[in-house]
Amino acid sequence: MTNTTINNQAFLAACRREKTPYTPVWLMRQAGRYMEEYRKLRAQYGFLELCKRPELAAEITLTPVERLGVDAAILFADILLILEPMGVGLEYAAGDGPVIHRPVRSAVDVDRLKEFKVDKELSFVIETVKKARASLGGKVPLIGFAGAPFTLASYLIEGGSSRNYVHTKQLFCSDPSAWIRLMQRLSSAVAAYLNAQIAAGAQAVQLFDSWAGCLSPGDYEQFVLPHTRSTIAAITSGVPVIHFSTGTSGLLKSIRAAGGDVIGVDWRVNLDEAWQQVGYDVAIQGNLDPVALFASPKEIRSRVADVLRRASDRPGHIFNLGHGILPETPVENVVAMVEAVHELSAR
Amino acid sequence: MTNTTINNQAFLAACRREKTPYTPVWLMRQAGRYMEEYRKLRAQYGFLELCKRPELAAEITLTPVERLGVDAAILFADILLILEPMGVGLEYAAGDGPVIHRPVRSAVDVDRLKEFKVDKELSFVIETVKKARASLGGKVPLIGFAGAPFTLASYLIEGGSSRNYVHTKQLFCSDPSAWIRLMQRLSSAVAAYLNAQIAAGAQAVQLFDSWAGCLSPGDYEQFVLPHTRSTIAAITSGVPVIHFSTGTSGLLKSIRAAGGDVIGVDWRVNLDEAWQQVGYDVAIQGNLDPVALFASPKEIRSRVADVLRRASDRPGHIFNLGHGILPETPVENVVAMVEAVHELSAR
Repeated sequence: MTNTTINNQAFLAACRREKTPYTPVWLMRQAGRYMEEYRKLRAQYGFLELCKRPELAAEITLTPVERLGVDAAILFADILLILEPMGVGLEYAAGDGPVIHRPVRSAVDVDRLKEFKVDKELSFVIETVKKARASLGGKVPLIGFAGAPFTLASYLIEGGSSRNYVHTKQLFCSDPSAWIRLMQRLSSAVAAYLNAQIAAGAQAVQLFDSWAGCLSPGDYEQFVLPHTRSTIAAITSGVPVIHFSTGTSGLLKSIRAAGGDVIGVDWRVNLDEAWQQVGYDVAIQGNLDPVALFASPKEIRSRVADVLRRASDRPGHIFNLGHGILPETPVENVVAMVEAVHELSAR
Repeated sequence: MTNTTINNQAFLAACRREKTPYTPVWLMRQAGRYMEEYRKLRAQYGFLELCKRPELAAEITLTPVERLGVDAAILFADILLILEPMGVGLEYAAGDGPVIHRPVRSAVDVDRLKEFKVDKELSFVIETVKKARASLGGKVPLIGFAGAPFTLASYLIEGGSSRNYVHTKQLFCSDPSAWIRLMQRLSSAVAAYLNAQIAAGAQAVQLFDSWAGCLSPGDYEQFVLPHTRSTIAAITSGVPVIHFSTGTSGLLKSIRAAGGDVIGVDWRVNLDEAWQQVGYDVAIQGNLDPVALFASPKEIRSRVADVLRRASDRPGHIFNLGHGILPETPVENVVAMVEAVHELSAR
């Protein structure tokens, strides 16, 4: 940071909609492929292997805090890790994204999902949280995270990422009771997982409902909202919950109704309009287009200023991208963005 | 149709927001791979070859009118045909979607785009319009179409379909004057193309801005809206223009500001809320999720009823999907949907 000193309380205070000396900022996937430090580690280890080595995963969690000057660290992990102990055959195939070898397409498949204990089967994540929290030494808070039940369900059902989510939508239309059982299983598992992260030291948690934007408002309300609401309601009270989704400009009110202290929005909606829609009794996170980071620092600064102007100095804005940072993003532009946020929002 | 007789004026009257005996319906990609008749032809001919044989393309245009009982025919063609005479090396690679072998990434590339005459280089499309219109014999109106400048630009720049539109957004950020030249070129070409279709017999036209939903409202307003507005303003007056996009729940007001007599919306927003946003001085088209057609006829009927209820009998609703029909869709479900629309909306 050039002119601002990191305030280690800014991020958590903004989650609670308290006044902060400047707008806190972090980036989704801030620990990732766009960073040389990370690429070096990935040359030696597979993605899943890195997640399963708490020493390395904690190191990756900390790198962007040092390198970028962001106001929070986010656990290095993946939303799909929770699916592995369910026995569906998770694999991160090189170049092709995640694959689920035994997708869940019926009531029988749902009942075949294995029960598991977070402390046992996902102990490596919990260990990473502990190590990262200790290494941070209070410099900035640590955010834990998990996939939301719908996004996890869609991966389980489609067997990977999807364009049209045909199998997912077919399941909730054709066998609503199997769908409910699946969503209840996921909802409990996610809540237990997040609570274990919190017990291990996570000071806030983000729920990623990355693919909720494929749904109509009616389907979201009927098939998703009740389960996301249960998940959020079961999270240890007092710890801020960020409820994130993309492509949901048409269903922000329902997203907000499902819960969360902070609503994360993408760039496809103006931040001021989004905040008005979800209500000023929640904080808001967002919402620069990740592709804006490919522009010049001058252009980035002007786009940062626009987002800040739309937040209009109201307490409770956390600056972020609208989705994860892209692998080819120039690091120096990310640094310029973080600096611009801090400088232009200094109060 | 079971209980309704096709009213050959219903579609055009709805475009003008006049009362109709029932809500007219047609489907994007209604002539396509989900139909056996079409698959048989595709087994013999390549996609581009079919487009270039007016006799066959006109036949494909008519098939769904007979088979489904829809209220309009849409020209069988593709939004990218207009790019071929520009000399960029368009190819429909089997299974991989369209490829542009010489993408446009700079001012120099923009200036290299070839000028062309619609009547000469795209005469096969014009011929198809003539033949289809004649064969329809007034049974239902014929819709012509083209890609909107932004969607065409994104294909030209990315070299095919894209996930993040990095090169497209980089071009308008880094070289706005090259971007403007490209959009002006596309805007004139599209207007000339649509006017030629109209002169040949198209009774309405749809402008597909399929990928506008990747943009922030600010970028849409600055880099897209003026050019879409020019295109629409240059279309032969008196012929209804349907302005279609997807994923644009957060920028519907700007889409509407760019023009169009009918605004096409996808399923990610409730039809009533969308119509309120764009204003009741335009007609609206939509908005069933294409995946709903994989559900049972009973479920389809209930979802059709919900969309119709949201249109609340206001004149100016054209029923459609929120995007193109998917290749695996069962034809009998499409027939059930069309019947449900006609029956449930009969006034």
